[in-house]
Amino acid sequence: MLNITRRQFLTYVGAAGGSSALLKTSLAMGIMPDEAYSGPVKVKPVATGNKPSVVILGAGIAGLATALELERAGFHCTIIEASHRAGGRNLTVRHGDKIDEMGNTQICNFDKAENLYFKCGPARIPGHHRRLLHYCRALGVPLQIKANSCKLAYFHDDKAFGGKPVRQIEYHADVRGLMSELVWKSAQSNQYDQLMSEEDVAKLVKFAQLHGDLTDAGKYVGTERAGSVTERMLEFPQPHAPIELKAMLDSSFWHGGLLGAELYDWCEPLMEPTGGMDAVVKGFLRHLKNPPVLKAQVKKIYNREGGVEVTYEREGKFHTLQADYCFNNIPAYFMGGIENNFSSVYQAGLDSIKRGHLFKIAYQMKERFWEKEGIYGGISYTADPIAQLWYPSHDIHAPKGILLGAYTWDPKVSAKFETMSPSERLIAGALSGEKIHPGFSQYIENGISIPWARMNHQMGCGMHMSPEDWDKYFAVLQQPEGRHFMIGDQISHHSGWQEGALASSEQALQQLNKLLSVNLSHGELSHVA
Amino acid sequence: MLNITRRQFLTYVGAAGGSSALLKTSLAMGIMPDEAYSGPVKVKPVATGNKPSVVILGAGIAGLATALELERAGFHCTIIEASHRAGGRNLTVRHGDKIDEMGNTQICNFDKAENLYFKCGPARIPGHHRRLLHYCRALGVPLQIKANSCKLAYFHDDKAFGGKPVRQIEYHADVRGLMSELVWKSAQSNQYDQLMSEEDVAKLVKFAQLHGDLTDAGKYVGTERAGSVTERMLEFPQPHAPIELKAMLDSSFWHGGLLGAELYDWCEPLMEPTGGMDAVVKGFLRHLKNPPVLKAQVKKIYNREGGVEVTYEREGKFHTLQADYCFNNIPAYFMGGIENNFSSVYQAGLDSIKRGHLFKIAYQMKERFWEKEGIYGGISYTADPIAQLWYPSHDIHAPKGILLGAYTWDPKVSAKFETMSPSERLIAGALSGEKIHPGFSQYIENGISIPWARMNHQMGCGMHMSPEDWDKYFAVLQQPEGRHFMIGDQISHHSGWQEGALASSEQALQQLNKLLSVNLSHGELSHVA
Repeated sequence: MLNITRRQFLTYVGAAGGSSALLKTSLAMGIMPDEAYSGPVKVKPVATGNKPSVVILGAGIAGLATALELERAGFHCTIIEASHRAGGRNLTVRHGDKIDEMGNTQICNFDKAENLYFKCGPARIPGHHRRLLHYCRALGVPLQIKANSCKLAYFHDDKAFGGKPVRQIEYHADVRGLMSELVWKSAQSNQYDQLMSEEDVAKLVKFAQLHGDLTDAGKYVGTERAGSVTERMLEFPQPHAPIELKAMLDSSFWHGGLLGAELYDWCEPLMEPTGGMDAVVKGFLRHLKNPPVLKAQVKKIYNREGGVEVTYEREGKFHTLQADYCFNNIPAYFMGGIENNFSSVYQAGLDSIKRGHLFKIAYQMKERFWEKEGIYGGISYTADPIAQLWYPSHDIHAPKGILLGAYTWDPKVSAKFETMSPSERLIAGALSGEKIHPGFSQYIENGISIPWARMNHQMGCGMHMSPEDWDKYFAVLQQPEGRHFMIGDQISHHSGWQEGALASSEQALQQLNKLLSVNLSHGELSHVA
Repeated sequence: MLNITRRQFLTYVGAAGGSSALLKTSLAMGIMPDEAYSGPVKVKPVATGNKPSVVILGAGIAGLATALELERAGFHCTIIEASHRAGGRNLTVRHGDKIDEMGNTQICNFDKAENLYFKCGPARIPGHHRRLLHYCRALGVPLQIKANSCKLAYFHDDKAFGGKPVRQIEYHADVRGLMSELVWKSAQSNQYDQLMSEEDVAKLVKFAQLHGDLTDAGKYVGTERAGSVTERMLEFPQPHAPIELKAMLDSSFWHGGLLGAELYDWCEPLMEPTGGMDAVVKGFLRHLKNPPVLKAQVKKIYNREGGVEVTYEREGKFHTLQADYCFNNIPAYFMGGIENNFSSVYQAGLDSIKRGHLFKIAYQMKERFWEKEGIYGGISYTADPIAQLWYPSHDIHAPKGILLGAYTWDPKVSAKFETMSPSERLIAGALSGEKIHPGFSQYIENGISIPWARMNHQMGCGMHMSPEDWDKYFAVLQQPEGRHFMIGDQISHHSGWQEGALASSEQALQQLNKLLSVNLSHGELSHVA
């Protein structure tokens, strides 16, 4: 502070009605920002020398977070993981890494470079995913902004605009212009007179004009907000001719493309860990006392008197663990193949969770050709099966880059890719890429694909339940069965998101706290401090 | 590539009608992406052993770029700079740096840390500023994505919504919903039947429904696109109640806030050099043969036979330089005070350029409290004089951060701050900050402000001309007067942007090339290779 102490400063602000005065007013008005997140559930700590044991099935994000919180409370945790690695669908592949697709093991042959990576699973974090952001902070996972939306990227549909890719900024500006023009027309012809006062109609007309960048006569004739056909640094800007309303209505981007970036989980700015999403997994592993037991496949889960018994197979041998509690992160549709003694309603609930068919392709591109088109991150949307092209927004101007060449979760569309060989997928993706960026294929050095529904130990991504099953079973699965708790994004309203996985863990730990209190009051559990 | 060579791959793609076939089709359709930028003007190289001399007045971005290109062509360049530093309005201040305000020298007392900085001038780069991006690439200036828009940041106006800050995502979603509802209503009551076919009206209704997230009855009742009042990870989302149309029309965010992020120069994603915008200046300086002569004030500029004569004062002494050419980056409104022999129309043109009044405040905050509200970068807009709050999007989750506490270029608003002392500005800014973030002042550790219209050697930022003067003089100033070329963002349609400065340099160098050709054809200049 210049020529003023901090104390003086706060006094001035207070005297002028700032700070605490304002704070009180705001509280009274109920306008305080959303209640601050207070961090993960604190599990009741156990008494010293009395370590209850927990077995956690699956080293996905929910399993790792559950283990961390329980270890902090003094529990002894063993994580059993079927795959060769921890992280579940939080998978980032680099040079030499394996995509463990059934029957089609793929090895990533990107150049050997830390920053040439493919985020096979989760890839972005919005500012309101407070649980995940808490862990990034607490575990020392560095974050950077990820450009999820690029106004200069394209919309493409063979059937719209003569198959020409359209810059999103033009489409967006034209939608706004054309809609505003319609509102203007209706307002001018007294269409809204019964809805609002004359004064408000006048404001609405002005609003429509500004919103759509209409002429004084209420016409939309294009806008320099979407760029210019002239060299605008040295000449007056001249807008592009707008898309015709009819062509706009015939196009397919009303939902996916136009609104894609408008959904709450994709609200800007989005973030990503610097160096790849697996930094989150590494962060958990750094802080866990016991590393997960890998390549260990669960065969039996039995609720027993006062505990859970889990049998798993590892390197051809069977092992049986007795634990006080079990947290189960295994995809629910695998549970039918795992011996258990759950109630029939609980089993039916597990069976009601269906596999998701998320599919991605990543290409190593020898040049970042998109940057020459002004595209520095974001997504082009297409009606072709690849659905999306994602441009990397880290390592700007580096010689090479990993371009996401397909990203679809429509089961019908993904099914097409699932039945192809890895090479066929790359060719199919390249053909669609060519429509958006002519010459696309020439830049491809190598590529890799991930059909999550064919992945060993996962067999899906983006689980879902029918609305009827949801009503019937979701609440059942949110509760423990004996001392067995289901966790994972599958037990949340946010399947496919790490935040959903963390919410499920939070929920299960809250249930555990309840159970501990109940048991305590019955004098059953002596291990609680 | 897996089980397939690159050559095979391209053959497959070609056979399937991809690559070259598609490329040709695309070219025929005229849909190729914008012509790739081919880099800066190549100045005709000079013959070996024959170095023409150039004097460049002002070490702003235009001056530095001009010097670099001329040095590459073999010219000998001397840059004369009045200030104690190079960069002009590209100024990034950190601990101990000076803001050279007339009569109010301020020293920055941020903590001593490379990443606690204040970008006093330019702060963001869109993907279509191809000249600046070229230099970032060529000079090795690392770039990162800068979050310019944050949907979770606020709109605030004492006079709207009872003075309550509104999350932008709610305002945006509600504008879209309310406008769509109006279009739906008009479409249903046959308002558009004369404009389009029945079939298109049906599409329009569907479009409005999706665009605005309307109910099946065409009502806008809020949308989960703007978040939820429930814990959406564990419960079904429940939208916030929408803003009333009347309240929306009474609010002041139609232009500044709502459309701010929609202007072409702010189209996402935006970028910034890692570590501060002055990395651009440092990049130029690293590549220039002759560093600028600092603290040297130009007093006279004379066009002479076959050259330009410049006199400057440094440390009380006068120096006169003879040069073959002069590129002049000095703010044009200073030219009235510099002796010259320019034509009266050229002088009148220079006089017609008026000062801009851009003003900024930056606070060092002891905590990044905004991150707790889900805000990771972007801008809150307010009707208060501070106009904008910018949240840093680098160093996410760091202990401290520099928050931009005011950013205004309205001369009337800036004038209020210009007449205040630096401390008074900080207090005024804090009072406005309190309205958006109760408790704001408590986080302030220190602060600094920059009223560009009071800065030594600049006296303004964001120059402008009246439309009449523009018509009369802009073309005059785009041409050289003798061997004197005006440059700087002031000689572009993009004052206040580095891209405008670079465009002016490009333009001047094109003029120089013309001059060299003409002179060459007359056999006058032997120094051209």
